Amino acid sequence: MPDMIDQPETPLLDQVRDPADLRKLAPGQLRQLADELRAEMISAVGVTGGHLGSGLGVVELTAAIHYVFNTPEDRLVWDVGHQCYPHKILTGRRDRIRTLRQGGGLSGFTKRSESEYDPFGAAHSSTSISAALGFAIANRLTGRAGKAIAVIGDGAMSAGMAYEAMNNAREAGNRLIVILNDNDMSIAPPVGGLSAYLARIVSSREFLSVREALKKLARKLPRPLHHAARKTDEFARGMAMGGTLFEELGFYYVGPIDGHNLDQLIPVLENVRDMADGPVLVHVVTQKGKGYAPAEAAADKYHGVQKFNVITGEQVKAPAGPPSYTNVFAQALMDEAQRDDRVVAITAAMPSGTGLDKFQKAFPARCFDVGIAEQHAVTFAAGLAAQGMRPFCAIYSTFLQRAYDQVVHDVAIQNLPVRFAIDRAGLVGADGSTHAGSFDITYLATLPNMVVMAAADEAELVHMVHTAACHDESPIALRYPRGNGVGVALPATPERLAIGKGRLLREGKKIAILSLGTRLEEALKAADTLDARGLSTSVADLRFAKPLDEALIRRLLTTHDVAVTIEEGAIGGLGAHVLTLASDEGLIDGGLRLRTMRLPDVFQDQDKPEKQYDDARLNAPHIVETVLTALRHNSAGVEEAGARA
Amino acid sequence: MPDMIDQPETPLLDQVRDPADLRKLAPGQLRQLADELRAEMISAVGVTGGHLGSGLGVVELTAAIHYVFNTPEDRLVWDVGHQCYPHKILTGRRDRIRTLRQGGGLSGFTKRSESEYDPFGAAHSSTSISAALGFAIANRLTGRAGKAIAVIGDGAMSAGMAYEAMNNAREAGNRLIVILNDNDMSIAPPVGGLSAYLARIVSSREFLSVREALKKLARKLPRPLHHAARKTDEFARGMAMGGTLFEELGFYYVGPIDGHNLDQLIPVLENVRDMADGPVLVHVVTQKGKGYAPAEAAADKYHGVQKFNVITGEQVKAPAGPPSYTNVFAQALMDEAQRDDRVVAITAAMPSGTGLDKFQKAFPARCFDVGIAEQHAVTFAAGLAAQGMRPFCAIYSTFLQRAYDQVVHDVAIQNLPVRFAIDRAGLVGADGSTHAGSFDITYLATLPNMVVMAAADEAELVHMVHTAACHDESPIALRYPRGNGVGVALPATPERLAIGKGRLLREGKKIAILSLGTRLEEALKAADTLDARGLSTSVADLRFAKPLDEALIRRLLTTHDVAVTIEEGAIGGLGAHVLTLASDEGLIDGGLRLRTMRLPDVFQDQDKPEKQYDDARLNAPHIVETVLTALRHNSAGVEEAGARA
Repeated sequence: MPDMIDQPETPLLDQVRDPADLRKLAPGQLRQLADELRAEMISAVGVTGGHLGSGLGVVELTAAIHYVFNTPEDRLVWDVGHQCYPHKILTGRRDRIRTLRQGGGLSGFTKRSESEYDPFGAAHSSTSISAALGFAIANRLTGRAGKAIAVIGDGAMSAGMAYEAMNNAREAGNRLIVILNDNDMSIAPPVGGLSAYLARIVSSREFLSVREALKKLARKLPRPLHHAARKTDEFARGMAMGGTLFEELGFYYVGPIDGHNLDQLIPVLENVRDMADGPVLVHVVTQKGKGYAPAEAAADKYHGVQKFNVITGEQVKAPAGPPSYTNVFAQALMDEAQRDDRVVAITAAMPSGTGLDKFQKAFPARCFDVGIAEQHAVTFAAGLAAQGMRPFCAIYSTFLQRAYDQVVHDVAIQNLPVRFAIDRAGLVGADGSTHAGSFDITYLATLPNMVVMAAADEAELVHMVHTAACHDESPIALRYPRGNGVGVALPATPERLAIGKGRLLREGKKIAILSLGTRLEEALKAADTLDARGLSTSVADLRFAKPLDEALIRRLLTTHDVAVTIEEGAIGGLGAHVLTLASDEGLIDGGLRLRTMRLPDVFQDQDKPEKQYDDARLNAPHIVETVLTALRHNSAGVEEAGARA
Repeated sequence: MPDMIDQPETPLLDQVRDPADLRKLAPGQLRQLADELRAEMISAVGVTGGHLGSGLGVVELTAAIHYVFNTPEDRLVWDVGHQCYPHKILTGRRDRIRTLRQGGGLSGFTKRSESEYDPFGAAHSSTSISAALGFAIANRLTGRAGKAIAVIGDGAMSAGMAYEAMNNAREAGNRLIVILNDNDMSIAPPVGGLSAYLARIVSSREFLSVREALKKLARKLPRPLHHAARKTDEFARGMAMGGTLFEELGFYYVGPIDGHNLDQLIPVLENVRDMADGPVLVHVVTQKGKGYAPAEAAADKYHGVQKFNVITGEQVKAPAGPPSYTNVFAQALMDEAQRDDRVVAITAAMPSGTGLDKFQKAFPARCFDVGIAEQHAVTFAAGLAAQGMRPFCAIYSTFLQRAYDQVVHDVAIQNLPVRFAIDRAGLVGADGSTHAGSFDITYLATLPNMVVMAAADEAELVHMVHTAACHDESPIALRYPRGNGVGVALPATPERLAIGKGRLLREGKKIAILSLGTRLEEALKAADTLDARGLSTSVADLRFAKPLDEALIRRLLTTHDVAVTIEEGAIGGLGAHVLTLASDEGLIDGGLRLRTMRLPDVFQDQDKPEKQYDDARLNAPHIVETVLTALRHNSAGVEEAGARA
């Protein structure tokens, strides 16, 4: 029975506890090892879900790197980390591989605290070369042996950060090796025998020594000829192999080679390891989803998957429910675009994650996928806004951090009406701390001119998209969480919200809950509980972290015994702004019991969302507890709390 | 008498109110116009001080662009804006040019609110191509005529953001022109007749039509040959002219041409303007400081100057005073480096601004200038820290915004001990809002694991550098302002401060001032005034915005009638954290009169520092006023305020 097969037969892999074991194998055994590694990975992700296609693409590369290099002494830095599952299996974590992305289990990314084989954690793109350069230079300064190897995908190369790092790589000399993992599905160049042959030749000692001799000779030529000689060498190899860009940045370029062919990979990596010059860029061509038919056949190569049946590839479907916030946003934005030619959309390599793939299909000329380039995305949007367009930058909260200076310098200071659609704001479940959107309220609401909204449900999101589309007076941000809406009906016609005005959902007398965004449901639940205990509770959805609804807040703070703010964000956000208002106006002087509930001051690891909210103490029972504790404070008991002067 | 000559004779320039007037001149008159423009600029900056060398380098280019292009309809975006003074003179702002960088005067940078000829403001580097692309695409979408022209220096090209933008430029077609203003003093290639000739040829219609015909022919060839033909075309031109990198990114490359030779500039720009294909990159070589002997002779080409004598070039010396914070930092770091091999320093193209030029001389192997590449700088530092070094990233507060995601993702989440030396924290005088360091306390203190210190004086800075050097447990930031210290003696031996501990400088009974960083002097002055009015005042220097000295704060808040926090930072920083602590612990419940003083919620324009502090209401009289207002609140008068339960 196929789906009773829990784990594949892996006799060779079973002997490999760590890379030292791997290095005991004969080169001829690596093919089988790779096959077993691939089967084990498929089996594991079938159980856990997670990133599959990327890991499948680097099975051979992972085995080859650990076989050739002296990890962990040689520092191996995986960019992004989507592709690190085979690496985890080979580096002492096989016994926990079926806990990937689960609470208390292995992270879905590399993580320093997990293993000495993860010298640098990742999750955001394009950081690996900078980090590897840090390792290489530290080794140079301390005279320590060891290479630094960055493995980075071609997509990650579109980020300016990778370019900045490459521009600085010369310093590392031969201590730095960058492996460009080229799996661009759109161009996927056939890797012919000629280029593989050339790659092997140019990385060989014999070629290098001839080349060195030629270089020395060239240096003795008059300067103009020397320059011409160098250029000729570069361009000859560049024309044959397409590596000119990297050569211009100071790398010795080797490739492209077939990343699934161990007979190519091992000797080239050995040559590269032993080169006296550097840094080296090895261009490896791989196929995402390689070796697993359902992944190879899928359009997205099973980039990220739910749990699935290993035999059929069929993924477990999420139970039907309310639409995701992402989809609600995408539909709302298409509706705006339908009505208004000036509405355009920008994504930084996340068309599907942000829902803009649908917008792209409907309005191809008005949708811009700029690549992994958040900095450019934001300033490009600022330019569009300056010329009268109504740009929506759809970026995850955590990735907007990449463009913070552009938000400040190009958007907020100039007061340009760029619309920030901030997806994945708040906790994000299985992706963990690197993807949590915890700081955007704080880092945006501190900026003059900025308007910051948070959607409490999917209907609110529709209103906020419309409000942002109409708002030409300043930059405006709307944040909304990962996952599905709460199930409210979507409005037939979106409403333009008044800027800086909240809504009072239920009016009580003793307790006021001031909610921003996603915790509104829990606030309402808490209000039920409090009401049942005789504590008549008001609940407001403030909608705006900036500008605050000062009139509403003032009223609630001065007419209730206890007020509690709640938000899915870190310190410095809504709570801090409400406290500051209360302090500025002297509202706290009279003995105001104001409390702020927010994300805790820790980076929370991956877990089920409900568990994460519980850990963060942002659920209804925590609100009730916060209120009751506040009431008890400096008083004998709950009964006396109502007696306020 | 030379120094009585206030303004040069400028008969031709006097006829030019705006670019429309300029375009009425014959091409042969432009040389004289440029000479007069240069003289006028030198004269103006002699009066105001400011950025001189960059503007001198682009006098001819500025005139040529406005002569050839249809500004302001064609959108001209100057990168950084250091070089925009000649542009301001030619675009209707000559009558105010002697107010540059003064309060109420012209900004030292381009600014949208100043002129329609400034379609996009600048000050931070490398934003121009993204913005220009926004203009170009908006024009494409709306069918509006008009080009977008970005003028960007070679240094600015080292920033990843410029690369991201170039990588996206194809979309703009011929609506986008990037002018690379290459004034790299270190390489300064001689611009020979051949390359100028070539540049003119390749930008001419005749060449383009031949080329187009060849391209069409090539398209009919079998695909491999087509590719080879394209490569051959590119490489032939690349080898002659060095533009391969730009061609790889999709630009048609023209250059290099002599940026001071109007007979080269005008025809090339006209050709480029009329090209049917694009985008185009025009490589212009200029000389910083050109045409002013003292600037040409100076090592820094008078990049930024004080007021100066136009005849001699002699700059007005700042009056002798305490050392600058920057110099104190640099010396303190060198002392640490002397004691500890692991101390290394990183700057992003600001060796002189951060004081690391001195460190560089003393420890050349341990100082890294990574170019305008803050993102890389921070993650590179994280890599160094992960390998056991003790890296100091010295970055201005405003520029650290460029690396916010790296601070979060690569440093804070991994809890790596990167030391952030944050210069220019707070208000910055003549540079204005784009350079103010207003947000770092807020955006750093919201991060788990981060330690945030602020130096109250130069002796404190020395202690903090030492404290940071010793601190391997987490990332740590120290912020300090632009300008000179307050004149305290520097410690012979630096002290290692206890993390999260402040110091009580004066103990009173009724009023508590909780200061962080630079406003301490004002706090002490305010305390004198308050004491004299019978309001016994405590003053604490909290030293840490994170972690807070909770014990000290708790004590001060519970034993004084009024407490005031003060910081040189925007909302969400120290004041918010103190309020949050007070709220979390219920300290506010008893009727606590706590106020927070901070930077106002506006972007403050350039002015004299003392005026800026006054506008921000962060001086001693404002502290006194805040205290007295708090005391009066809900009570009859000052006399009664002491009567606290």
